[in-house]
Amino acid sequence: MKKFRLLAPGPTEVPPEVLLAMARPVIHHRTPEFEALFAEARRGLQWLFQTQREVLLLAASGTGAMEGAVVNACSPGDRVLVIRGGKFGERWAEICLAHGLSVIPVEISYGKAVDPRQVAAALRKDTGIAAVFVTHSETSTGVLHDLEAIAAIVRQTPALLVVDAITSLAVVDLPTDAWGVDVVVGASQKAMMLPPGLAFACLSDRGWAAAERARLPRYYFNFLTEQKSQAQHQTAWTPAVSLIAGLKVALDLLQAEGLAAVFARHERLAQATRAAVTALGLTLFAERPSPAVTAVKVPEGVDGDAIVRVLRDTHGISIAGGQGSMKGKIFRIATLGYADAYDVLTGIAALEFTLAELGYPVRLGDGLRAAQDVFQK
Amino acid sequence: MKKFRLLAPGPTEVPPEVLLAMARPVIHHRTPEFEALFAEARRGLQWLFQTQREVLLLAASGTGAMEGAVVNACSPGDRVLVIRGGKFGERWAEICLAHGLSVIPVEISYGKAVDPRQVAAALRKDTGIAAVFVTHSETSTGVLHDLEAIAAIVRQTPALLVVDAITSLAVVDLPTDAWGVDVVVGASQKAMMLPPGLAFACLSDRGWAAAERARLPRYYFNFLTEQKSQAQHQTAWTPAVSLIAGLKVALDLLQAEGLAAVFARHERLAQATRAAVTALGLTLFAERPSPAVTAVKVPEGVDGDAIVRVLRDTHGISIAGGQGSMKGKIFRIATLGYADAYDVLTGIAALEFTLAELGYPVRLGDGLRAAQDVFQK
Repeated sequence: MKKFRLLAPGPTEVPPEVLLAMARPVIHHRTPEFEALFAEARRGLQWLFQTQREVLLLAASGTGAMEGAVVNACSPGDRVLVIRGGKFGERWAEICLAHGLSVIPVEISYGKAVDPRQVAAALRKDTGIAAVFVTHSETSTGVLHDLEAIAAIVRQTPALLVVDAITSLAVVDLPTDAWGVDVVVGASQKAMMLPPGLAFACLSDRGWAAAERARLPRYYFNFLTEQKSQAQHQTAWTPAVSLIAGLKVALDLLQAEGLAAVFARHERLAQATRAAVTALGLTLFAERPSPAVTAVKVPEGVDGDAIVRVLRDTHGISIAGGQGSMKGKIFRIATLGYADAYDVLTGIAALEFTLAELGYPVRLGDGLRAAQDVFQK
Repeated sequence: MKKFRLLAPGPTEVPPEVLLAMARPVIHHRTPEFEALFAEARRGLQWLFQTQREVLLLAASGTGAMEGAVVNACSPGDRVLVIRGGKFGERWAEICLAHGLSVIPVEISYGKAVDPRQVAAALRKDTGIAAVFVTHSETSTGVLHDLEAIAAIVRQTPALLVVDAITSLAVVDLPTDAWGVDVVVGASQKAMMLPPGLAFACLSDRGWAAAERARLPRYYFNFLTEQKSQAQHQTAWTPAVSLIAGLKVALDLLQAEGLAAVFARHERLAQATRAAVTALGLTLFAERPSPAVTAVKVPEGVDGDAIVRVLRDTHGISIAGGQGSMKGKIFRIATLGYADAYDVLTGIAALEFTLAELGYPVRLGDGLRAAQDVFQK
């Protein structure tokens, strides 16, 4: 018998009740049954996004919703500010460049969070910037950017604020309306406890006004078409009905726990993970760590890829290595979605075995005790 | 107890073994387990598409893959020929127009199939046409276009042939390589017996050469990025792993039945449906009917929307009404995917009850016997 566990930053574990909801017979989308399900799921999403606005559901991965945000917010020739410093910040830049936008990068060293004053300075320097693209939780480096401070700055300018909240939704507080975020993008396979295949987008009034003006070519990800269909309790294109059936159950679980408790749980799991790896003599990579994922520096003399491989092949646990230029230099443990204290302890126990196996000096139990101390508090 | 049945042209019934495969715990996509599953699913797709080329898997509805076909095959200013005559032919035109292409429509009356000589004439008249867009099975009218003849014509010109095979795949023969189709687009929720959320695209060598040249903006649906990832047993963006787990099982079922038997079954189910409605005094709408869906004219004096509504609300059976200008004028019964003779007989029995209830003179059993006669042969 071999058990498999996901401690990777997506896809994440899916609760059995969600899996079973998705295994129910497919219903037709033009029925009162689907429309009732869809309405409930959308109400749940409004709660999760902390918004009075409509949340759009797209049959796509998160990257599809990111491209949707770009093509609905911008027009050819627009100058946009993109906070880089990680694979997903860079993805915003890539999408904007693919659509011929003029990208002004805010360069951040990997592992660092953007200083909101850098954003303020860039917006002062160029008052014609159409939009600012931010990654709330930069999964590739484990950094949580200070979105509240950034939002306060961008709100005072005509620029739109577009946020990739793919790994921050249902993990850290993101009051969409209160902070005045213009486009928030999410996806199913992170803390929303669903398989990949659904993406979300929520637009402010300014965001919708931009979508009306936007002149980039778009069809599948045309948010105006989608909004019109949702007003009639339908999606523009055939909806991923099974995933939406699962979404309803996942949202019920989150609502039963309560938003504040969901955020507190993620914070506690991340604190325990950080305490454990620190107790093992390892160093955190992110200076402003995200509760979604803990990035850890690979210690000198240890093969970083081997950590990920041994955990997976010997212990059945999927974590993530470093991406791109970070390959072999960091590993990342996610405590995201359907995860509790015992999942963290399992991951730490396996990490201790793995490090020992790879010749790193570790006293078994040191990481576990440090994590337990956090949970006991 | 109320049972629900799908006789609509998507989503269709999903076999229980496929539903259960999708309910298995989510696996991480960067594992040997996923890569093995993905490789098997792709081999099955090559069998289904009758191609030696790679079939791309996209997390999207079919419309997303259609847009992908346009942005990977074309460049700004291209003149393209689009066979209209139904909602999905019109969708090709809409997508092309959204991307600034110059659309030369081949107008077909609803319910008629294109005369391949019209395509030949249009290509002779304008030798600079970059691509021809065809809907193999036009679901909105129930028409099956003569793709083999169209392909033979287009192959003799420099134009690319781009085919929406969303409701024809696994229903009628479509030997992609043998007919020289340059782009074939499919989706999961039709005869492939899966929930919505996966789409497919298969390109010929000419199609790939066009993708290399294409200059329309694209990111999520960039087939070159996707091809590069698939060469490494991955998708470009997080794959819809649960749907792919279901796809593997659905393809196993189709392969066990055999392609010729799958086509013969659909042909028989459609023949029985046509015989039944004809025996009830109704008239078929399509002059060249598709085995995927049978479009029937609403008889004089009967409320067409009521037929769909009564079947759904009283009998638990989802069929489809007419779309757009066809609303209330036709209804459509699909015999698509996970469907057998008894599903057709159930649908016909319910249709007889429904017509009687709505005041149309019907002798119960006439449609059923006509269908049985077809099945007995």
